[in-house]
Amino acid sequence: MAPTPHPLMSLSIDETTQARDIILDAHPGASIYFRIVSLLEPPKAELTAFLDAEHSGRLTSSTPRPARLAEVKYDAIERGSKVPVYQEAWVDIDGKKVVQHELIDTEFHASLTFPEFNTFVEVCEKSPVFQQKIKEFQLPPGFEVIIEPWPYGGLDAADENRRFFQGLIFAADASKDNKDTNFYSFPLPIIPIMDWANKEIIRIDELATGGTNDGFTSKTHKAGVLDHCQSSEYVPELLKGGTRKDLKPLNVTQPEGPSFAVSGDNLIEWQKWRFRVTFNAREGAVIHDVHYDGRSILYRLAFSEMSVPYADPRPPFHRKQAFDFGDGGLGHCANNLQLGCDCLGVIKYLDGVIVNADGKGEKAPNVICIHEQDNGINWKHTNWRTGRAVVTRRRELVVQFIITLANYEYVFAFKFDQAGGICVEARATGIVSVVNIDPGKTADWGNVVGPGVLAQNHQHSFCLRIDPAIDGHKNTVSYEESLPMQINPQTNPNGNRYEVRKTPITTSTGLDIDPLAGRTFKIQNLDIKNPISGKPVGYKIQPPATQKLLAAPNSIQYNRALFAQHHIWVTKYRDHELYAAGRYTLQSRKEKGGVSDMVKRNEGTVQEDVVVWNVFTLTHNPRVEDWPVMPVEVSQVNIFPSDFFNANPSIDVPSSKNEASQLANGDCCDSKQSKL
Amino acid sequence: MAPTPHPLMSLSIDETTQARDIILDAHPGASIYFRIVSLLEPPKAELTAFLDAEHSGRLTSSTPRPARLAEVKYDAIERGSKVPVYQEAWVDIDGKKVVQHELIDTEFHASLTFPEFNTFVEVCEKSPVFQQKIKEFQLPPGFEVIIEPWPYGGLDAADENRRFFQGLIFAADASKDNKDTNFYSFPLPIIPIMDWANKEIIRIDELATGGTNDGFTSKTHKAGVLDHCQSSEYVPELLKGGTRKDLKPLNVTQPEGPSFAVSGDNLIEWQKWRFRVTFNAREGAVIHDVHYDGRSILYRLAFSEMSVPYADPRPPFHRKQAFDFGDGGLGHCANNLQLGCDCLGVIKYLDGVIVNADGKGEKAPNVICIHEQDNGINWKHTNWRTGRAVVTRRRELVVQFIITLANYEYVFAFKFDQAGGICVEARATGIVSVVNIDPGKTADWGNVVGPGVLAQNHQHSFCLRIDPAIDGHKNTVSYEESLPMQINPQTNPNGNRYEVRKTPITTSTGLDIDPLAGRTFKIQNLDIKNPISGKPVGYKIQPPATQKLLAAPNSIQYNRALFAQHHIWVTKYRDHELYAAGRYTLQSRKEKGGVSDMVKRNEGTVQEDVVVWNVFTLTHNPRVEDWPVMPVEVSQVNIFPSDFFNANPSIDVPSSKNEASQLANGDCCDSKQSKL
Repeated sequence: MAPTPHPLMSLSIDETTQARDIILDAHPGASIYFRIVSLLEPPKAELTAFLDAEHSGRLTSSTPRPARLAEVKYDAIERGSKVPVYQEAWVDIDGKKVVQHELIDTEFHASLTFPEFNTFVEVCEKSPVFQQKIKEFQLPPGFEVIIEPWPYGGLDAADENRRFFQGLIFAADASKDNKDTNFYSFPLPIIPIMDWANKEIIRIDELATGGTNDGFTSKTHKAGVLDHCQSSEYVPELLKGGTRKDLKPLNVTQPEGPSFAVSGDNLIEWQKWRFRVTFNAREGAVIHDVHYDGRSILYRLAFSEMSVPYADPRPPFHRKQAFDFGDGGLGHCANNLQLGCDCLGVIKYLDGVIVNADGKGEKAPNVICIHEQDNGINWKHTNWRTGRAVVTRRRELVVQFIITLANYEYVFAFKFDQAGGICVEARATGIVSVVNIDPGKTADWGNVVGPGVLAQNHQHSFCLRIDPAIDGHKNTVSYEESLPMQINPQTNPNGNRYEVRKTPITTSTGLDIDPLAGRTFKIQNLDIKNPISGKPVGYKIQPPATQKLLAAPNSIQYNRALFAQHHIWVTKYRDHELYAAGRYTLQSRKEKGGVSDMVKRNEGTVQEDVVVWNVFTLTHNPRVEDWPVMPVEVSQVNIFPSDFFNANPSIDVPSSKNEASQLANGDCCDSKQSKL
Repeated sequence: MAPTPHPLMSLSIDETTQARDIILDAHPGASIYFRIVSLLEPPKAELTAFLDAEHSGRLTSSTPRPARLAEVKYDAIERGSKVPVYQEAWVDIDGKKVVQHELIDTEFHASLTFPEFNTFVEVCEKSPVFQQKIKEFQLPPGFEVIIEPWPYGGLDAADENRRFFQGLIFAADASKDNKDTNFYSFPLPIIPIMDWANKEIIRIDELATGGTNDGFTSKTHKAGVLDHCQSSEYVPELLKGGTRKDLKPLNVTQPEGPSFAVSGDNLIEWQKWRFRVTFNAREGAVIHDVHYDGRSILYRLAFSEMSVPYADPRPPFHRKQAFDFGDGGLGHCANNLQLGCDCLGVIKYLDGVIVNADGKGEKAPNVICIHEQDNGINWKHTNWRTGRAVVTRRRELVVQFIITLANYEYVFAFKFDQAGGICVEARATGIVSVVNIDPGKTADWGNVVGPGVLAQNHQHSFCLRIDPAIDGHKNTVSYEESLPMQINPQTNPNGNRYEVRKTPITTSTGLDIDPLAGRTFKIQNLDIKNPISGKPVGYKIQPPATQKLLAAPNSIQYNRALFAQHHIWVTKYRDHELYAAGRYTLQSRKEKGGVSDMVKRNEGTVQEDVVVWNVFTLTHNPRVEDWPVMPVEVSQVNIFPSDFFNANPSIDVPSSKNEASQLANGDCCDSKQSKL
């Protein structure tokens, strides 16, 4: 018998399949399409009771354990019906029963699945009207049509509330005989739209291909629309000049193995840190129950949502607004990471579990990687009197996952350092989304990044959900600013003083950054004072200094992503309230149940169980250098101790010399002879 | 005979000594105290003529070479006089003559030297009044006095314009029998002030040691002022619990050697980059003549200045305002870097030249290190149809130097990547500046970081000087913002559009960041258009989103650091105009000849030889975790191409698998058995 899983273990393959079977039993004779089966994390009250016992060493076989619950999302066509009904259930796996069940209002749409995407592609391919449109383009010989399914942005006021799919259409040069040729270089100016219920193409939107002054109405080219496009490849065997030859190997070796330990597939211990990792289809990797040196810091840490609205004003591009977590579930899009490619050194991979087409659990291998890296100097001091230098390196533990969303990728990493800090990083890379533009034209809403290829301006609004537990679950958020003071004989006689102003957040609300005021956000436990400074123990959050989502306030783009209208949200914790833009984002017209609604509860947030949401919005006006694959654009949220510890927590990091480092020798570096 | 040095080679030891000898010859019978002898970089017109010949392969032995000039700064006591006179000369080394000579107005003060610091310490030690003060403290048995020389902040209105030194005073526990015990834990509340001309202590300022509400006037403790202080060590042999034992080695190995080449000690070539490095006493490492793939990007890149004002309002702490470049010359404070400590991998060290006590050139070994590092993923794309992932690593070339300024250190790095970008990084570390505070007290202007030890709030205003040469020397700066637009049926029918507004800078001026408007700064060559996008070729600057210097506008702190009142300054180039706060900062009352004066020339900056200065100000309100040595606080300026290239310049980086990476094995990672 398998050992009892920790309450924070993701569902195993077996548990997933058991949950599926319980649902099948609950719908005798029905035809069921399973979308998601994943761990429903225990209510916090139950889980913390268990974790408290665990951390205090009181855990025994009789300690009450939260039930193993699965959240199952599925469409069921009941016996005698032909209509699939989307519903969600909570299943007690050991109790073998459904403990909660809900038919989801048709106002909301289930998130997308890969099989649905495949259906869309098939429907397009069979559609005479779609094929007719393609035929009119008279593609160059050897070119094949590629259909890229996309979520159907926000519903327009005129749209009926049905389930739609849209697709961007490209052409691949099959004569290259390489399935990985970059078809994005050849965009076709149509977007087919499918009605899911009837599996038929209901409309084909024709896209304008002009420049700034050519109007927004359709000027679709027919024949020859790709004549001015040129291939732009990224797979090495297709690169015209091949790859550069002068990059010599750089290896990370760890002869004694890594410094971390992973137990039971989800407990990570490293350098006084101890936390758990789970993986789910919506958020990807989730960090739980974070302790440092036995003290609690965070209850849970995960990316919650991302919205990517495009700014091309020509209809129907306002419907290019993906919610990459809510619409599709980025866990489904997690890359299966490969040794020696996605990180260096000694690497531990964790697998995930997804459901296959018939709802059974299936392994998703290597969806998370864990490794250590060196990040330069951690601290240094030289006593100039004696010349003695003491320098320590900054070692980091990285928990990383990578997702591919059609053309684009994100590299997400939680990086723990030795000084009690956590850096949460998002790297945007992949292929920017492009549309066809007429030869010689340019457009204010994008940049021509390749011949005939316009990369549209867009934004990425990320939301990181931080559920703190600073020495306990009752915490208080405040912000702190450093502000100028006038000269005053009593308080500031020489004018060098500035004021450090603290503003506690007393009720749930949304807040903005203010870099010119040096505004930082603190999460403190006001009940526990630092014995050295006398100030409450706390952690500081340094959000990226970005702008907010720019769409007009009465636009659909704006209203379905209300979470992106503040940089910081402070809410009072509720079980299962994890999603910044609400549970249902697909085809939404307005954010419902997201942070913008949560704060309306006006709950007190002083020494309460609070949650902090950090939204940062990368405005991406593409450069030519972003084509055909963009170099990473890096955003970082830093979460680090502020009077939490009694001294630099990394003061005991060894300053020993790294014996493997070497002097560059004469082969590369001739210091005797000038080149001139 | 030594080969003719490149015009951008720093002075050799021989050249330095030759320049000194020429000065000695020019002052027969005088007593000369040499402060600085360093390369005076050639006028740009002369140098670019030479560099153009070099880059186009037209360089011959008859190509005109700029004269090798030394800038010599020295005090001379002429025969028959007793008064040292500070003066500066330009010396033509090969021509063996002084080509320019200037007696410096006594309004200005020469920058500090280590021998002066030593003199100050000796004068204190011999001073009866100083010794009497120390005696009154009745130091604990075995404690020795440590004198930490500091520049004498800005002169008060009441101060005579003489050359002063001040010192912070600490006590070291000699019973530990370790010269590297952390004496900063034991601050004594006096500041002695020396008049340099007479070498005597003219005053001892007594420091208040109370809390917020205890007034600003002196409440100096006499006996027992250290009784509540406790040692807090950082050298490993003095750490109470020793160093942590669970950190296993992480090595960077480069079996085929590094990918860079260094020729003639200052030409660096790596991954299509080509540039030169020099080292001087004021700015440390300087990057020159930066090209990528044969195209010019920058003429010169260096840190220009840093001002560190302290915000404790109690006199005389307003005089704690160091100008770390102008006051002392941080090149003099550069660490001699050690293999396996300051970077990993295969490392090339460059030496510098400084002048010794009698003015002769002397080697400063290993003041710059050059190495490669891995910085995660550079770009990645997975074709989700085929599963084929192409991922390249982000290799960086790092040119690093580290300075120690009494208690504090800075790690400066110029990091070049493979995608045409340069990241300029400053890491602040070392020991925060502290003063004594009474037991049980706290103060609004700082934080108690150790028993009896108040770390005062302060700021670090860095200025990076960027002298661009984007495809030539005629460049134009603009800023670009992404701004919301209202819904409008003609221009923005669905409200998803935003405006990208470009504002060219037409005359020299100071500008601020505006992160909420997404403001970025571009340097473009308007005469050269990108063939793909049709836009001018350019580079973008992403400054750190910091506040400005906070001191009150009529304070001395504010006025001597006017450069810190804007984030970006755009000036028209003039030869030898390198210093953001002016040539002379020591004891200044007001910035003279700095960027705030340069912009007043109101020069046209459209397609001119422009210089861009980026000022970023780290507000440091210390945390307990910053004690006794602070973990690095990292600031980065990113300079990267924006429609400069015709595609991603790193698209040809090999995506080959790193064969040295390994799977974590069962020793660390038991995935079979849960711990619980």
